[in-house]
Amino acid sequence: MDIEDTLLMIPGPVKVAPRVLRAMSKPMISHRSPEFGRIYDDCRELLQEFFETKNEIVVMSGSGTCGMDAAVGGLIGSDDRILTITNGKFGERFTEIGNRYGRAISVDFEWGMPFDLERVEAALEEGVKAVAMVHNETSVGIINPAREIGRLARKHDAIFIVDGISSIGGNEFKTDEWGIDIAITGSQKCLAVPPGLAIVSVSERAEEALNESSGGYYADLRAHLKSVRKKPTQTPFTPAVPLFYALQEALHMAEEEGFEARRARIARLAEAVRAAASALGIELFPVLNEYSRYSNTVTAMKIPPEIDDEKLRGGMKKQGVVVSGGQERLKGKIFRIGTMGVCSEGDVLRTIQALELVLAKEGVINAPGEGVAAAAKALDR
Amino acid sequence: MDIEDTLLMIPGPVKVAPRVLRAMSKPMISHRSPEFGRIYDDCRELLQEFFETKNEIVVMSGSGTCGMDAAVGGLIGSDDRILTITNGKFGERFTEIGNRYGRAISVDFEWGMPFDLERVEAALEEGVKAVAMVHNETSVGIINPAREIGRLARKHDAIFIVDGISSIGGNEFKTDEWGIDIAITGSQKCLAVPPGLAIVSVSERAEEALNESSGGYYADLRAHLKSVRKKPTQTPFTPAVPLFYALQEALHMAEEEGFEARRARIARLAEAVRAAASALGIELFPVLNEYSRYSNTVTAMKIPPEIDDEKLRGGMKKQGVVVSGGQERLKGKIFRIGTMGVCSEGDVLRTIQALELVLAKEGVINAPGEGVAAAAKALDR
Repeated sequence: MDIEDTLLMIPGPVKVAPRVLRAMSKPMISHRSPEFGRIYDDCRELLQEFFETKNEIVVMSGSGTCGMDAAVGGLIGSDDRILTITNGKFGERFTEIGNRYGRAISVDFEWGMPFDLERVEAALEEGVKAVAMVHNETSVGIINPAREIGRLARKHDAIFIVDGISSIGGNEFKTDEWGIDIAITGSQKCLAVPPGLAIVSVSERAEEALNESSGGYYADLRAHLKSVRKKPTQTPFTPAVPLFYALQEALHMAEEEGFEARRARIARLAEAVRAAASALGIELFPVLNEYSRYSNTVTAMKIPPEIDDEKLRGGMKKQGVVVSGGQERLKGKIFRIGTMGVCSEGDVLRTIQALELVLAKEGVINAPGEGVAAAAKALDR
Repeated sequence: MDIEDTLLMIPGPVKVAPRVLRAMSKPMISHRSPEFGRIYDDCRELLQEFFETKNEIVVMSGSGTCGMDAAVGGLIGSDDRILTITNGKFGERFTEIGNRYGRAISVDFEWGMPFDLERVEAALEEGVKAVAMVHNETSVGIINPAREIGRLARKHDAIFIVDGISSIGGNEFKTDEWGIDIAITGSQKCLAVPPGLAIVSVSERAEEALNESSGGYYADLRAHLKSVRKKPTQTPFTPAVPLFYALQEALHMAEEEGFEARRARIARLAEAVRAAASALGIELFPVLNEYSRYSNTVTAMKIPPEIDDEKLRGGMKKQGVVVSGGQERLKGKIFRIGTMGVCSEGDVLRTIQALELVLAKEGVINAPGEGVAAAAKALDR
C-alpha cells in the first residue's frame, strides 16, 4: 500500500490537508513561552465558535478518550454515581470509565438501536451526579438526542457530559443551547487534524462540581483549567507542539470555509453515501426513532450477505480506498464510511466507485454505475 | 521571535532534525492497519536497544507524565504504598501521583542535593510495593544513583520505577543491568522527536505486579500491554500517528549515528558547557556526593548575583538563543541549558557566545571570549 496514494475514508483519523500537514514541520518552541501561549489562545477562541459555546476550552495531548477520562474522572469519585446511556462501543466506554472511579448506572440499548427517553428518565430518578452520552456513536453511525437528554439532565440537576468526538463540526451540535456542561472532541475527526489532541469545553457549573482530587493524574481537567488561566496560557504537562500547529492551521482553514458551510457540505456528502447505498440495495445499520438520526460524519451499512468483510474492504483497499469494518460484536457484519473535515465530493465518488466495482466483481450487483449515479445526483442538489 | 531562526537550548522540547519534521507530513493511516503495526514494531525494536533492555516496550500518546502516571497508577491502588525519592520537581511529581492512587512515602532532599542512601534504606524497611525515582532530575541538572537504588529495591522486593525522561539516550542508562522494572522516557528529550509520546519499558515482574484495576483510564499500562500483543500491533486508544512517523525516523537517525556514539557526543557537549561556566565564574547548581553526577543532558547553573533572570535569558533570546529558567522555588535563581539529541557543537558554541555577550553587556564579565574558548577546548578533546 502506498500511503501517499491512498484515500482514507474511515471515521477517523481522516484525510488531512497538505497545508495542515506542512504546518507541523515548523521547529519546536518552548511550551512555556508567549509564542506557544498565543497559538493556544488563538485555537481556544476559534474552538469556542466551533463548539458554539462561551465555555472555557482546554486542549489535552491525548486521544479523545483522554478527554472522556478527564470529564468523568474529574466529576466522579468513589462516592459518586454517573448515568451512562449506551448504544455502541463508545457509550460503553463511558460506563467503563465511570466504574473505574465511582459507580456507573448504565441504560443500555442494543448497538445501533435508538435511545428510549422514558427508560433514561426512570434511571435519572435514582439520583446521579452526572449524565454521559455519545452524540454521534461512531461505532454504529447513529446520532443520539443530546438536546432531549440535556433537558432531562438539567431537570434532575445532573452535570451533562457529551462525547462529540466524531460529531462536533460535522453534525449540528449546540453546546450552550443544548445545555452541555462538558463537550469533547478529538483532533482527528471533523477538524481534520492528525490524531493526538482531545478538546474539552467546560461550563462554570461543571467546574464547580469537579472533585478536589479524583480521576487520573495525567487526564486531569482541574490542572488544565488552572493552566489556561496562567500568563502565558499553558498546559499542565508538555503539549504535543506540532499538533497544536496543525490545529491552528486547520481551524483557520475551517473558518475560511465557514463552520456552517462545512457542516452543510458534510451533510451533502453523507446524503450521497446514503443515496448510493440505497441504489445498491445496501441496508443502513442504525434503527431510528423520532429522537435519532443518521450520522452525517459516518455511515454504517450492513455487509450484503453475498459478500464477506475481507472481500469487500480488502477489494476496496486494493483500489486504494480504505473504509472501516465493524468493531467487536459488529465485526464482519457492517462496514463504515467516514465523511468529515476536508473530505471532498470527488473522494465520495471515488469511494462509491470502488465499492461498486467490488460488488460487481463478486456478483452482488450486475454492473457498476447506479451507485455513483445516485451519489452524483445527491451531490448536485 | 522568528521560530524558524531560533536556537532552542532548553531541556526539552529540543531541536528536531528537518528529516524528522518532514516525516510527520506523510498522510494519515488507520491506526488498526498492518501498516501502522509495522511502524510501531520497528520503533519498539529500536527502543529496546535505546533502553538497553529486553523488556516489553509500549508507546503512549501523551507527555512523559502520562508514562509516570501509567507506571504508578498501574501498581499503586488504595491499599498500596510507594517509596518516592525526591530532590527536584519531577521527583515530587511521583509523590503526587502516588498519593492520588494510594499512599506515597517520600524521602525528600533539598532540590539539587544528592540522595543519602542510608535514609532511603531506612524508609524501605517500612515495606513498600514499589520505589520510584528520577534518574536525571531535569529541574536541577543532577544524575541520581539508579544502580544503587535498584539494588536496594531488589533487596526489599519492591518494583523499581525510574523516570529516565531527560536521561535515556543521553546519559548512561542500563535498564536491565540496573534492574529497572519500569523505565520511562519522553519523545522530546534525547530522541529529538517533537513532544507528545511517552515510552515505557515494563519487566515481567512489574507486569505481574500490576493491579487489575487501579490508576487512570487513559494512562493504563495494562491496556497498552494487551494491545501490543494483538496482530497487527496496536495501541488501546487512537495514537498520535505523525509522532510515530517522527519517532521511527528519529530512531533510525540515532541508529545511524550509533546509540553509544550519540551518548559520547552529548557528554562532550555538556563538558563544554561546564568548562565555559567555569571560565566565566558561573557556579553549577547541583551538589554532588559519591553517588551522584552532573547531568550530560541539562546543565543547571546559578544566575550570577550581578544580573537577573530577565536580563540574562531575555538578552540571550534577543540573540535568538532560548535557554530555560528555574522552576517553582528556583525561579530567578538558576538557568538551564539542554544538550540532547541532535544538538551540535556549533549550537553549544553559539549558546555560550550569546551568554557571554549578555554577561559582558551587563558588566558581569569584562569582555567576551573566555567562555567560548574554554568550550571549544573541551570539544576538541
